[in-house]
Amino acid sequence: MFQTQIYFDNSASTRLDERVLEEMNPYFFDIYSVATSEFAYSMGIEAKEAVDRSRDIIAKSLAAKPDEIIFTSGSCESSNAAIKGATAALSSKGKHIITSKIEDFPVLNTIKRLEREGFEVTYIDVDDRGFVDMAQLESSIREDTILVSIQHANQEIGTIQDIDAIGNLCRERKVLFHTDATHTFMRVPIDLSNLNVDFMTFSAHTVHGPKGIGGLFIRKDTPFKKLIDGGFQEFNMRAGVEDIPSIVGFAKAVQIIPSDESKTLQKMRDYLIDRVLSEIPDTSLNGDISKRLPQNANITFHYVEGESITLHLDMYGFAVSTGSACFSKSLEASHVMMAIGGSHEDAHGSIRFSLSRYNTVEQIDNLVDTISKIVQNLRKISPLGKER
Amino acid sequence: MFQTQIYFDNSASTRLDERVLEEMNPYFFDIYSVATSEFAYSMGIEAKEAVDRSRDIIAKSLAAKPDEIIFTSGSCESSNAAIKGATAALSSKGKHIITSKIEDFPVLNTIKRLEREGFEVTYIDVDDRGFVDMAQLESSIREDTILVSIQHANQEIGTIQDIDAIGNLCRERKVLFHTDATHTFMRVPIDLSNLNVDFMTFSAHTVHGPKGIGGLFIRKDTPFKKLIDGGFQEFNMRAGVEDIPSIVGFAKAVQIIPSDESKTLQKMRDYLIDRVLSEIPDTSLNGDISKRLPQNANITFHYVEGESITLHLDMYGFAVSTGSACFSKSLEASHVMMAIGGSHEDAHGSIRFSLSRYNTVEQIDNLVDTISKIVQNLRKISPLGKER
Repeated sequence: MFQTQIYFDNSASTRLDERVLEEMNPYFFDIYSVATSEFAYSMGIEAKEAVDRSRDIIAKSLAAKPDEIIFTSGSCESSNAAIKGATAALSSKGKHIITSKIEDFPVLNTIKRLEREGFEVTYIDVDDRGFVDMAQLESSIREDTILVSIQHANQEIGTIQDIDAIGNLCRERKVLFHTDATHTFMRVPIDLSNLNVDFMTFSAHTVHGPKGIGGLFIRKDTPFKKLIDGGFQEFNMRAGVEDIPSIVGFAKAVQIIPSDESKTLQKMRDYLIDRVLSEIPDTSLNGDISKRLPQNANITFHYVEGESITLHLDMYGFAVSTGSACFSKSLEASHVMMAIGGSHEDAHGSIRFSLSRYNTVEQIDNLVDTISKIVQNLRKISPLGKER
Repeated sequence: MFQTQIYFDNSASTRLDERVLEEMNPYFFDIYSVATSEFAYSMGIEAKEAVDRSRDIIAKSLAAKPDEIIFTSGSCESSNAAIKGATAALSSKGKHIITSKIEDFPVLNTIKRLEREGFEVTYIDVDDRGFVDMAQLESSIREDTILVSIQHANQEIGTIQDIDAIGNLCRERKVLFHTDATHTFMRVPIDLSNLNVDFMTFSAHTVHGPKGIGGLFIRKDTPFKKLIDGGFQEFNMRAGVEDIPSIVGFAKAVQIIPSDESKTLQKMRDYLIDRVLSEIPDTSLNGDISKRLPQNANITFHYVEGESITLHLDMYGFAVSTGSACFSKSLEASHVMMAIGGSHEDAHGSIRFSLSRYNTVEQIDNLVDTISKIVQNLRKISPLGKER
């Protein structure tokens, strides 16, 4: 019964691509000097050039300028840096922040922290598919609003927000706009030269790059104070010895993404959704069917506990997630599921499937066959069952 | 004339040990799940266990409890987290901070940032070998002092402070004590069960571990607010997806340090110092000869520019540093050299040599022979020369 674990959870995208490690290798063992020693000796210059080259690759992938991209330790730091950095720079102008009810925890809990420290926060509602209420957003912007932080796509239900419209509204009303693009980065086209986005969070760990390295886009001349003080690294916007191997690996991970990978993922996703919804009774898709992350499916299996499904799937060698990535540790109902109007039962019965480069249609077939059996068995014994 | 670069600069310790990468390998490709998914499936548990094991190893190396150690992205973040975290938690009690004049930039610039935001700061003087003025420290502690941050050893001149005495003083006066132990970690014995230290910064990159991963010791029940908000990772003291490969690599780097490595480094250091001081005229050691980092030598070559020496050494394949690690980019005189009473000329003529596992006595012989020639030549043409 046991077999090698097959990931369909949020870890799926975090498997390192072998080509990334290969690219990192010389920076572990040969060119390991500190990049900022550039005036001191030649190896420092080589290290600096590797960082510059990597930054160029990543900037180009987003149609940003290289000096608008800084490297961080990951998405969580990026969102903290953007939100705390912008609000610290602008707190004399106002203390009102706007966000959505379905942000991931790095954004949500950073803003809640600021709220405890005296900022005022408006949490925008979303509809039953997870789209933010644009009218409410528009009417919430005030004279003292200094930042809007609304995610590009949702971490659980995959709904993609219209950041073009949100950005335009923010620009018009002269409010800074941060978006957490952790899950859309390299999966959905992002053209920062055409978007009114001031800060954007992204990360290597969602595209088979190294963990512990992320990126933050900060549009030129945007008010900002450093989260991490120290040396002048990263255009004096983020101190700390550069993690050059990971920076190089990040760029390689971006470079090797096949141009049709999102399409491939989307096809697999739709195949998974179609099979589950048509073959397993009492299931429903959470989120939107078209404005949706290509790698994400989120399905409620009514009358069953999601936790039970994941535990059984684990025994069959499949890893999937229930609830939010960071919080499946806790058994609280997902704040995202609650915000889209789900019941506690719906929230607990929902499973998120994340697809990656290393998943295959054959794996999906096995997964669906297995879930089908598991759900059937669980429903026979479930106290949530229809018949009871 | 050109050869493979030999590092005697602050990059020396940042070469990854091959055994570290080997240990990290399965966590890139096999056990790559997110550690916090522990309740969800078995791979999550394996990942969590790897983090726990690594934390135990590192805690034991410092005689700390595992839940007093959190992983960060490096020394710079650790110092920012400690200083900003403690002062944010205690700002209602007082707004006075004490530090030394020779701290490294992560501490110094974090405290300067707080100073700009309304905190009051006392910068303690050091003597000509870099020891903090204990009498001044004692008399500087006030009712509203909330934090003392004084480094364990200096990044440039290697002077080791008496953190036992400083800790006792702080405890007696009920003030929190943070120490930046980036350079002493695993090089000088540190027993946190016997030291009155509340926060300690350390890092993997100084002991041939991965870059981008550091540690912060936070003594149990010490007032602290998170620098990076988000999920509940790291005992709810530092959010962000755990960089498990780097955490595992960090522990491995600690585990494989030979018990006599500091002694070996110290012998090489003394050999280097002896040869230079006895064979090259008009040279002097900066810092203390005995209370000194085993891996550090810092020598002023009078009547010569340090920058010229490093550039010439580079051509011969040796990498050394002048000024501070983070700042050799700038040509400002080192704040450390100025604080120990050096002239601008002394500061610019000083070279820091850092020794590591990969240096040999033979390399040192070549290095000293080469410097000897370089300095002789430079002095012939130097405008700073004695004869002029």
